[in-house]
Amino acid sequence: MASILVVGSVALDSVKTLEGESNEALGGSAVYFSLAARQFSNVSIVGVVGKDFPKEHRRMLSGRGIDVAGLKEMPGKTFRWVGKFGRDLSDAKTLATHLNVFKDFQPALSDNQKRSEVLFLANIDPELQMDVLSQMKSPSIVACDTMNYWISSKPDALRELLAKVNIFFGNEEEAKKLTKQPNALRAANVISEWGPSVVVIKKGEHGAVLKAGNKFYVFPAFPLEAVKDPTGAGDTFAGGFMGYLAATGAYDDVDALKRAMLYGTVMASYNVEDFSTRVLEGLTRAKIEERFHDFLDRLAVSREPVTA
Amino acid sequence: MASILVVGSVALDSVKTLEGESNEALGGSAVYFSLAARQFSNVSIVGVVGKDFPKEHRRMLSGRGIDVAGLKEMPGKTFRWVGKFGRDLSDAKTLATHLNVFKDFQPALSDNQKRSEVLFLANIDPELQMDVLSQMKSPSIVACDTMNYWISSKPDALRELLAKVNIFFGNEEEAKKLTKQPNALRAANVISEWGPSVVVIKKGEHGAVLKAGNKFYVFPAFPLEAVKDPTGAGDTFAGGFMGYLAATGAYDDVDALKRAMLYGTVMASYNVEDFSTRVLEGLTRAKIEERFHDFLDRLAVSREPVTA
Repeated sequence: MASILVVGSVALDSVKTLEGESNEALGGSAVYFSLAARQFSNVSIVGVVGKDFPKEHRRMLSGRGIDVAGLKEMPGKTFRWVGKFGRDLSDAKTLATHLNVFKDFQPALSDNQKRSEVLFLANIDPELQMDVLSQMKSPSIVACDTMNYWISSKPDALRELLAKVNIFFGNEEEAKKLTKQPNALRAANVISEWGPSVVVIKKGEHGAVLKAGNKFYVFPAFPLEAVKDPTGAGDTFAGGFMGYLAATGAYDDVDALKRAMLYGTVMASYNVEDFSTRVLEGLTRAKIEERFHDFLDRLAVSREPVTA
Repeated sequence: MASILVVGSVALDSVKTLEGESNEALGGSAVYFSLAARQFSNVSIVGVVGKDFPKEHRRMLSGRGIDVAGLKEMPGKTFRWVGKFGRDLSDAKTLATHLNVFKDFQPALSDNQKRSEVLFLANIDPELQMDVLSQMKSPSIVACDTMNYWISSKPDALRELLAKVNIFFGNEEEAKKLTKQPNALRAANVISEWGPSVVVIKKGEHGAVLKAGNKFYVFPAFPLEAVKDPTGAGDTFAGGFMGYLAATGAYDDVDALKRAMLYGTVMASYNVEDFSTRVLEGLTRAKIEERFHDFLDRLAVSREPVTA
């Protein structure tokens, strides 16, 4: 099995949506990513939590096969995010962010971690992302995500990082802002000129765009009549995508990349059906394959003309 | 070949987008619909124009195999629409609407038209749509489109019409408004309870949703790096969809409906590449098939797991 190292946030999230709310529930980009990716590949988390981080969360992650040796406990409190979603589920309103121990996060990789085949740099300060990348021996593939905050505050560090990254993940608004382009496809073109040969633009309920081998592949989201909590959908998508891709090892294969898009979509669709990591914790590979094939069937269109 | 009767607007449009502008150019829902549908089926237009309607437009439509015997010329001026699109191409700003001869439009079908197999009621007053429907002998299939204006002003007439319609087309915002539902899928569920067994929700650059046989099929838009003029995209989509479907005669076949979705998508993608009907006028079936198969290839995902 391929080994993926993910560096990112581990958080306690309090989220309110039209369907309910969660209070100091497990969250964070590294957590969502890992819980999705572990279905396909071995995953190790590099991150930091405070003294208040519930032991059962660490046990749960570990019980799901995720290596949490690199999840350091530091004096202080765990990173917290307080957010709210209205009718527009693509629009997360941040009510409060308490960085706490995350403020002084200085990831130091173990020898084992430095030799991981795949590195996923979840959305954190691009200078930290670069620092982690520079500690790696010779990863086969490096992927990253980012967000508006870093696009505004550290654009140069981000550009420098992108030059060393193989796969970029970003949501549509972020990609447009980062590249000053009016649409997702042109934004992907600019980002791929900066470095990543594969660009994935996430569009939430409208699906996602893959640019690979100079061509665009657009896939819809899996149709859901209700979404309880969109928190972590993007990280879960990336986890399903990277977990599957790492398992194939076929990083440049367009067909593998397209399947990775669908696995990412399926994982994200499960995640949003309940708050926090509830669905991901109990998800089986059988249920994933069931929805993956359901999704393939819905997308499948026969090549032959239909005549009555 | 199946025969489709379309009743809707024939207009002179003046449109400004970030990519340029058109001035009193050919437009209208019946025109876009016909120019797309004629690629697959026989089409007759029922509509009205004023004395100022350029003869070359009538000749062009007729030269493309569209029956314009039902396009009546009345004293007065042709219907005009003046609109503008900014960065958000889904958001048409209407600057002026001059109904002119359209105000007193009273469609009277010929015997031949009354026996058409397929009726498409493009976006006009639902009372007029109902009037046309009641003149028909026994159409195999009736489809309709509508818009915000009628949803607000004549909701009861619209509901009455929907009870007699097989296929509903509407854009996402309209469908949500009409049904007071928070998302496209739930809106489609409500609409199908009102009558239509097939519901198509158009999402512009984000593709379209098909509800058929109690299941949802979502398809992305064809990826385009630039859009010159989105005017008529929805009517062109409906034209490709209905034209193809009428040609198959397989109105209840999910596979035929899914192919119709892709033909609609392909036709709309061509239409938005230039202003007014410029692209549709010169489009060949070969170019349609080329993009249709390109689109199929992009969407195709292999069922077998990929392993390195």
